[in-house]
Amino acid sequence: KDGDKLCVVLGPWGPEWQENPYPFQCSIEDPTKQTKFKGMKSYIAYKLVPSHTGQQVHRRYKHFDWLYGRLAEKFPVISVPHLPEKQATGRFEEDFISKRRKGLAWWMDHMCSHPVLAQCDAFQHFLTCPSTDEKAWKQGKRKAEKDEMVGANFFLTISVPTGPGASLDLQEVESQVDGFKAFTKKMDESALQLNHTANEFARKQVTGFKKEYQKVGHSFKCLSQAFELDQQAFSAGLNQAIAFTAEAYNTIGDLFADQPRQDLNAVIDLLVLYQGHLANFPDIIHVQKGALTKVKESKRHVEEGKMELQKAEGIQERCNIISFATLAEINHFHKIRVRDFKSQMQHFLQQQILFFQKVTQKLEEALHKYDSV
Amino acid sequence: KDGDKLCVVLGPWGPEWQENPYPFQCSIEDPTKQTKFKGMKSYIAYKLVPSHTGQQVHRRYKHFDWLYGRLAEKFPVISVPHLPEKQATGRFEEDFISKRRKGLAWWMDHMCSHPVLAQCDAFQHFLTCPSTDEKAWKQGKRKAEKDEMVGANFFLTISVPTGPGASLDLQEVESQVDGFKAFTKKMDESALQLNHTANEFARKQVTGFKKEYQKVGHSFKCLSQAFELDQQAFSAGLNQAIAFTAEAYNTIGDLFADQPRQDLNAVIDLLVLYQGHLANFPDIIHVQKGALTKVKESKRHVEEGKMELQKAEGIQERCNIISFATLAEINHFHKIRVRDFKSQMQHFLQQQILFFQKVTQKLEEALHKYDSV
Repeated sequence: KDGDKLCVVLGPWGPEWQENPYPFQCSIEDPTKQTKFKGMKSYIAYKLVPSHTGQQVHRRYKHFDWLYGRLAEKFPVISVPHLPEKQATGRFEEDFISKRRKGLAWWMDHMCSHPVLAQCDAFQHFLTCPSTDEKAWKQGKRKAEKDEMVGANFFLTISVPTGPGASLDLQEVESQVDGFKAFTKKMDESALQLNHTANEFARKQVTGFKKEYQKVGHSFKCLSQAFELDQQAFSAGLNQAIAFTAEAYNTIGDLFADQPRQDLNAVIDLLVLYQGHLANFPDIIHVQKGALTKVKESKRHVEEGKMELQKAEGIQERCNIISFATLAEINHFHKIRVRDFKSQMQHFLQQQILFFQKVTQKLEEALHKYDSV
Repeated sequence: KDGDKLCVVLGPWGPEWQENPYPFQCSIEDPTKQTKFKGMKSYIAYKLVPSHTGQQVHRRYKHFDWLYGRLAEKFPVISVPHLPEKQATGRFEEDFISKRRKGLAWWMDHMCSHPVLAQCDAFQHFLTCPSTDEKAWKQGKRKAEKDEMVGANFFLTISVPTGPGASLDLQEVESQVDGFKAFTKKMDESALQLNHTANEFARKQVTGFKKEYQKVGHSFKCLSQAFELDQQAFSAGLNQAIAFTAEAYNTIGDLFADQPRQDLNAVIDLLVLYQGHLANFPDIIHVQKGALTKVKESKRHVEEGKMELQKAEGIQERCNIISFATLAEINHFHKIRVRDFKSQMQHFLQQQILFFQKVTQKLEEALHKYDSV
């Protein structure tokens, strides 16, 4: 099993997880209602197609939940993304199912992006075990549940850089971890605020903005109807142009109401996912700080003659591994954060631009109606 | 004085005022504070430059008000545009003065567009009498005030189409005037509503829309500040791009708040002017209906032998003139209405398009900041 060792390597920005040599992705599509026990029990199954096998499998939310539990237990310093919320009334309602599917797809993307999570046995079993082979599924499940390399033992499976200059300065690590702690706190606050603002902004567009533009549309409509009463032939063109303008403002109202689905919702999904990550980090930091405290204690105990030097060196060695893993995980977090927020901001702005272009186009159509008046 | 007769002619859409053979316009600019009685009394004078003389004159609001009074008295079936509101605290405040100047300019445009009003003596005196020649001013004023061709006598100065087939079918006229009455009622309602909606829409942009976009800007700013805490070199570009995006949303908020000044305010000004016109028409219609009633009565009186046929024909002739003048005025109203609403709707849409293009441009600038991240 030694060949399966997880490696932390030194990258340009410090310790990082060795990249997955066989990167893959996995789509989640076609949630369908299925039954068992002759229709006594219904559930929703999602179709998963991992790119490295190309073989589709079907999984239920409870399978994701089982997997999440395994991973959260196994990896003490890795942020396992939270699943989309569990409890919900109306489990079979279309809106809920489609929202959950999207949430699971975000979750899956993040799982596949993580070198350690993506490669771990339980996840691979989940992705590849044929849905029809109940026996193989149970076998893999049992195996994962009996895995001994979980929690504290997980660190035994990690190999870190060795040799002169490769070991970490623990004071330096402490300051880096403290810096990251401050960062996560601030990011959590700003993600919370942006989430709130994005939800409010969406709500305002769906209600207020839509209403205001449609009120303008309605008033123009009334004006064109009043003008139609005049029966003057030379006014007919103007009346039609104003009626068209009224329709344009109605459409713009609808565009505003529809817009959050095009841009803000994806931002909100990303924020929720990251709020989950940020909620994981206090525990991760706690593990690392615990190891550091043990090192300090062991040093004092050696000075006081209460501990053998060899034992203290073992503790320090263990702390070194935990620190390498923690820093690799922090580094990974920053990398995916920059990647995800960059692409989400781009997507948001592109959609906003498209939106305002559509509005402009509607208005230009309306303006042209006056050319021949 | 017969050469000065006002003519109603038959145009393609029915009776209309003969066009002014010497059309002109008049600008109103540079309101300046002036004093008299050695500084004891201050007032604002506006510079008027009529295009047909090119000679600037200075007039005060009270001169406009005097002129308005003359015209309203003189022309029973002509809608004299209302002056911008009279009473105001802070007569010397810049906002008020600039708003009043704009209102007077709208008023003046409508005066110059009207064949009868534009050519009448009192108005020409107002436009051309040198501001420095106190004596000439008083003389013209006295002359206008002693004008006998006012009110009922005004109709004596009107010449209408004569000859076979030129006189009006009074039943037809009655139905046209009733139709116009219904039209003005509906137009008044819709102008009132559009005015209200435009004011609300402006208020929402200045407060609500601005606030919502700037809240988004603020949230992005917080996010970029949180990200700056991370100290990762590879994040710096993203942080700057998000900070720029935050600024872009702040700017968009300001653009929303500034927009009503560019488009809605002119629509509102036009509506106020037309609401004034619409308020004039009940009196105009009343004059025409009174004449019609007199004709009907005189016919009955002739049948009953209580009136000589000749006298009844005189009444009918008079009603014919009033009807021609009323229909000419209605026709004029429709013509300027179509002209004004066409150009105002075009202006409004053009400005709205420019606005959304500016917003799009800001967002595109922000999007490009992510290219090099």
